[in-house]
Amino acid sequence: MPDFIHERHKPPTVLERPRELLVACAPLRSSINLSRIVRAAGCSGVTKVIATGSAKLDRNIARDGADAVELVAHRTLPPVLKKLRTDGYRLVGLEQATNSHSLYDYKFVGRSCLVVGNERTGLTDDLLELLDDVVEIPSYGMPYSHNVATATAIAIYEYCRQFPSG
Amino acid sequence: MPDFIHERHKPPTVLERPRELLVACAPLRSSINLSRIVRAAGCSGVTKVIATGSAKLDRNIARDGADAVELVAHRTLPPVLKKLRTDGYRLVGLEQATNSHSLYDYKFVGRSCLVVGNERTGLTDDLLELLDDVVEIPSYGMPYSHNVATATAIAIYEYCRQFPSG
Repeated sequence: MPDFIHERHKPPTVLERPRELLVACAPLRSSINLSRIVRAAGCSGVTKVIATGSAKLDRNIARDGADAVELVAHRTLPPVLKKLRTDGYRLVGLEQATNSHSLYDYKFVGRSCLVVGNERTGLTDDLLELLDDVVEIPSYGMPYSHNVATATAIAIYEYCRQFPSG
Repeated sequence: MPDFIHERHKPPTVLERPRELLVACAPLRSSINLSRIVRAAGCSGVTKVIATGSAKLDRNIARDGADAVELVAHRTLPPVLKKLRTDGYRLVGLEQATNSHSLYDYKFVGRSCLVVGNERTGLTDDLLELLDDVVEIPSYGMPYSHNVATATAIAIYEYCRQFPSG
């Protein structure tokens, strides 16, 4: 009997309560990145992703996330973020910025909205000024930063690690 | 003075010693996924990625990782893994499998080789039987698993979190 047997389509961990984490995206250049974020969100039990501008998905990339995740598109992000803060969400930007926390040390609160920026410009000043916290993933070499969808998946992972049951 | 100011091209964290982590990939279907893995590796200070079969990179995706990371291609992975084990590497597969550890709880040893599988077939039996450990990323919804490059980036992140200085 081998030690390790591949378990295909293993059922997911059942959350004790719905995930409170939201993900909000500044206008992204690439629907591929948005689709990858939606897949990572779905896989992590995140039920809602906020997009800005186009919310076109490539279903070959988003996979079942395209159905499992509610994707809502807004024209601009600031009013949405202000409303979320009123609703008790902590607004956590993912960016290389002054006064950021390392993602290694950051303690998420349950009701968090992860805010991610455009592939080229990152989080712009009008978004940065609305945030409660900024987290960044330590980088150690070239290139100096992760792709936006990769970085978002890593930050979602870190949240889930801190809230393994929701 | 705003709290958060975007720091573009912020220099990376300097490792106190070279990263000992290696990444070994079973034959991947997509050079995009391999390129994404190389980017995440470069960004994390990982200096070597082992590919099987084609090691073609899309430099628009791998970015500077294409130069920072040594990419070596082998025809098949088992002899390489056996050699790595002789060299003192712990072989850690990333897969949904029996007797796996949750990535949340797994304690990496410094000298580790992360072994990742094909997009469709995952880690095949001939690779699974060579591994010391299998880790998996808990999933909470649809789809039941992350894309291979996303999962690899998450596992590399977790390793770096445990070895923030190398």
